[in-house]
Amino acid sequence: MSSASASTTTCLPVLIAGRWRDAAMVDSFKATDPSQDSPIDREFPVSSWADVDEALSAAASAAVELRKASPDKIAEFLDAYANLIQANATDLVEAAHQETGLPKSPRLADVELPRTINQLRLAAAAARTGSWAMPVVDTKASIRSCYEPLGPICVFGPNNFPFAFNSASGGDFAAAIAAGNPVIAKANSSHPETTRRFAALAMEAIEQTGLPPATVQLIYRTTHEDGERMVSDHRCGATGYTGSRSAGLALKAAADAAGKPIYLELSSVNPVVLTPAALAERGDKLVDEFVGSVLMGAGQFCTNPGLMLVVKGADSDKFIAAVAEKFAAMTPGTLLSPAVTKSLGRAIQTLVGAGAKLLTGGGEPLPGRCARANTWMSATGKQFLADPEIFQTEAFGNASLVVVADDVRQLIAVIDSLEGNLTGCIYSKTDGNDSDYGPIAFVLAPKVGRLLNDKMPTGVAVSPAMNHGGPYPATGHPGFTAVGIPASMIRFAKLTSYDNVRDSRLPWLLQDKNPSGKTWRCVDGNWTTADV
Amino acid sequence: MSSASASTTTCLPVLIAGRWRDAAMVDSFKATDPSQDSPIDREFPVSSWADVDEALSAAASAAVELRKASPDKIAEFLDAYANLIQANATDLVEAAHQETGLPKSPRLADVELPRTINQLRLAAAAARTGSWAMPVVDTKASIRSCYEPLGPICVFGPNNFPFAFNSASGGDFAAAIAAGNPVIAKANSSHPETTRRFAALAMEAIEQTGLPPATVQLIYRTTHEDGERMVSDHRCGATGYTGSRSAGLALKAAADAAGKPIYLELSSVNPVVLTPAALAERGDKLVDEFVGSVLMGAGQFCTNPGLMLVVKGADSDKFIAAVAEKFAAMTPGTLLSPAVTKSLGRAIQTLVGAGAKLLTGGGEPLPGRCARANTWMSATGKQFLADPEIFQTEAFGNASLVVVADDVRQLIAVIDSLEGNLTGCIYSKTDGNDSDYGPIAFVLAPKVGRLLNDKMPTGVAVSPAMNHGGPYPATGHPGFTAVGIPASMIRFAKLTSYDNVRDSRLPWLLQDKNPSGKTWRCVDGNWTTADV
Repeated sequence: MSSASASTTTCLPVLIAGRWRDAAMVDSFKATDPSQDSPIDREFPVSSWADVDEALSAAASAAVELRKASPDKIAEFLDAYANLIQANATDLVEAAHQETGLPKSPRLADVELPRTINQLRLAAAAARTGSWAMPVVDTKASIRSCYEPLGPICVFGPNNFPFAFNSASGGDFAAAIAAGNPVIAKANSSHPETTRRFAALAMEAIEQTGLPPATVQLIYRTTHEDGERMVSDHRCGATGYTGSRSAGLALKAAADAAGKPIYLELSSVNPVVLTPAALAERGDKLVDEFVGSVLMGAGQFCTNPGLMLVVKGADSDKFIAAVAEKFAAMTPGTLLSPAVTKSLGRAIQTLVGAGAKLLTGGGEPLPGRCARANTWMSATGKQFLADPEIFQTEAFGNASLVVVADDVRQLIAVIDSLEGNLTGCIYSKTDGNDSDYGPIAFVLAPKVGRLLNDKMPTGVAVSPAMNHGGPYPATGHPGFTAVGIPASMIRFAKLTSYDNVRDSRLPWLLQDKNPSGKTWRCVDGNWTTADV
Repeated sequence: MSSASASTTTCLPVLIAGRWRDAAMVDSFKATDPSQDSPIDREFPVSSWADVDEALSAAASAAVELRKASPDKIAEFLDAYANLIQANATDLVEAAHQETGLPKSPRLADVELPRTINQLRLAAAAARTGSWAMPVVDTKASIRSCYEPLGPICVFGPNNFPFAFNSASGGDFAAAIAAGNPVIAKANSSHPETTRRFAALAMEAIEQTGLPPATVQLIYRTTHEDGERMVSDHRCGATGYTGSRSAGLALKAAADAAGKPIYLELSSVNPVVLTPAALAERGDKLVDEFVGSVLMGAGQFCTNPGLMLVVKGADSDKFIAAVAEKFAAMTPGTLLSPAVTKSLGRAIQTLVGAGAKLLTGGGEPLPGRCARANTWMSATGKQFLADPEIFQTEAFGNASLVVVADDVRQLIAVIDSLEGNLTGCIYSKTDGNDSDYGPIAFVLAPKVGRLLNDKMPTGVAVSPAMNHGGPYPATGHPGFTAVGIPASMIRFAKLTSYDNVRDSRLPWLLQDKNPSGKTWRCVDGNWTTADV
């Protein structure tokens, strides 16, 4: 943070209770242009508890209003917001490029922004039909249940997706709003201007569609203490957090102690296993596939393959050497911020300090921008098994570790020692005739949220069948996904049963008549879109 | 606990890794016959960490085996176990009656045991079809997801349902096993012999059907420290706990810190609102309905109506006086244990100490058995609002508090000050023409897991639409139910996506062919029992 001498007049305003106003600030900060490694000349406030307190109260009132709003109204807002984002794409791309260093095209303009718009539209459609709420009707017992809004949702977005996971436009945002809740967005400190622009468009969409003004609010930063106080406040319904493990676990401890749900997406090394048969069959092809996945976006994806697992031999030697060559030859991407440059360096040091061999990369940060050399390290299975915890240190960025096991048995032991991860990949022989697949998959599947075959983990499709989640510490709970409409919406909802309640008093979703004509409901054990 | 001088030879054995053996004990205890208020002459061990450690390891191995077992096999076990319970009903009823004082008939033999058997059979059916796992198929993206077993589940059963919530036969047990997990049952200390008999029958069913021996294990008690260590151990998949708030929150803190899911059912006062119009219409009838619900089973239900809300006036005066008369006239039921007698007395003292008026009951415990006078207290809306926390003290047992509000507005303010509850009831005018209903329901619904109309909360149907859950502190998470197959099974499962995995390598539930011919799956947005 900058010095406390910053005056409020130079700072950009927060959005609270439908009004852009000066923050009640305790400090201020500037984001960095990582492609220059220089501060951007725009000052943002660090809010005091007074701002958070006012936002929580306004959100609590908005939550009451939203419970009275029709799902169509909420859907209209999401669609209007999506349209405004589309119309302001150029400005958003410009802001995000300056704050993150991510390429304008294709990444920001052609991939991430369309994905963000699509998510909001899917969320609108989900709100309209209501199938997400999993209405269950038991006509015999006269009991009906569905998921309902939970109240104000605090969203902490990550640094690596300034659009698709932005706290004011991304996956958690869309899921929380579509489930009928107001959102308090805590901007990621590395792209506050991008987030401010999103919030402004959201506010415009609120005005267009007549939702409560405090449906979307924005603060940029708080002290750690106030953040913990916010997620455990009685007015908070739940929290969605994507970011570093240490900050996430501090928030989790606070929320847990208050009995407040918190959904975390934390670190993950995303193991990729290449069976000996796969390497023998198509090692060269796998080099390109792996290098493409691990260096894309300078490796700054939650599902970046940070841990490669192979069995020693001529094929794996060749694979490892070829990867080293490509890593050394390719220009390193720009990292998101000085903080990422620093944490990546620290992680590499930790791994090398633990005995990992530096095959290429390492060293000091590159000059003139936020960047480090592409880094490729190796360790033996024996080394890994001697200290699995340290060798699972996430090196967030353009770095990866290959573990070379003595044999498949040891490779399986390495997998067995892994923590929970978002993804796990297995590359095996194309014709399916690969006896190593079964035993490896059996041990890997329970460790991961998504098991991939012959495919790198870096694409996360917005699919109803997607699980962007996984066992702790990849996330805080193994039963929820952060990506995929409608499944991700359940996180921001409470289950309610209505027992012996007459039709006219039931919520929309549970009345005899199918609410949208196409809402899927489980009636007496059968899923149907018919009326009861 | 008794003195540490107890020798292992006099103690009943624990069931660990398929073997009944002497506990590695740190102490011993005896249960009480509450109808005599005298200890039962059977000694049970308090296990040391060594027992828990061995049970966790055996369960972890069993979990691996169970992942290989077919769902039919698991269903066979559940059915065989249900049959054995049926065949041994007399002995079980005898043991439970002695340990809990609950009437043999109808309660134990004719209500709770059939319910328990029914739950196990429903769980078997759910395991067979697999619809519980909510398989989702996205053919376009080639991603498929479903819920899968989570690993060893620790079950802590409550004192008040020796059969239907028993840690070795009840709802959590059935849900955990049907989802494919082994169970470590921690007996409730007030009915260890009943639990031991269940575990013996479960072991017999395991032998009949060939499941891994450690699928069901039993310990009776541990130190608090070891309990906390158990639920946070890396081998534990998740925990189901039903019981006191203080013990539950201690376990929750330990499990949360380790990132282990824990599902808690804690205290709840279950507010019942009688609108002025309902009282005017049928006050007399409501007296009987309320008294029957609140004194049934000596009021020892999780959903016992412990808080009645009315508006002052002649009708409510009459209602309150009539309840007082019935409470005084009816013989108090026997409480479950000396601990319940004590905690009920403490809760009544707290409420009266806070200013509640004692209308009938209170005083010292009754002699010769575990019992207290039926206790009926009142407070004003103003009193309640001045200290909502203390007036929400749960008086578990045959006691209830009526809050008399000045008007409907104040009554709604009282509701707005409530914590999360399992249930909330509203009695209103029969013809539906009651303008108080809407505003009351709007404020009450978000506070409760189940909203009932014109019905007392004490019946908890085993229905797919049942939510036996609710916002904290009624439970630890507002999205889950502890009753109702299949919904309760999700708690003991992890979500897994399979991305680009060929059909033959997919789990049973996700292959193209419908696994049971009648499994409900969501295929490309439509629920169907057809093949893909």
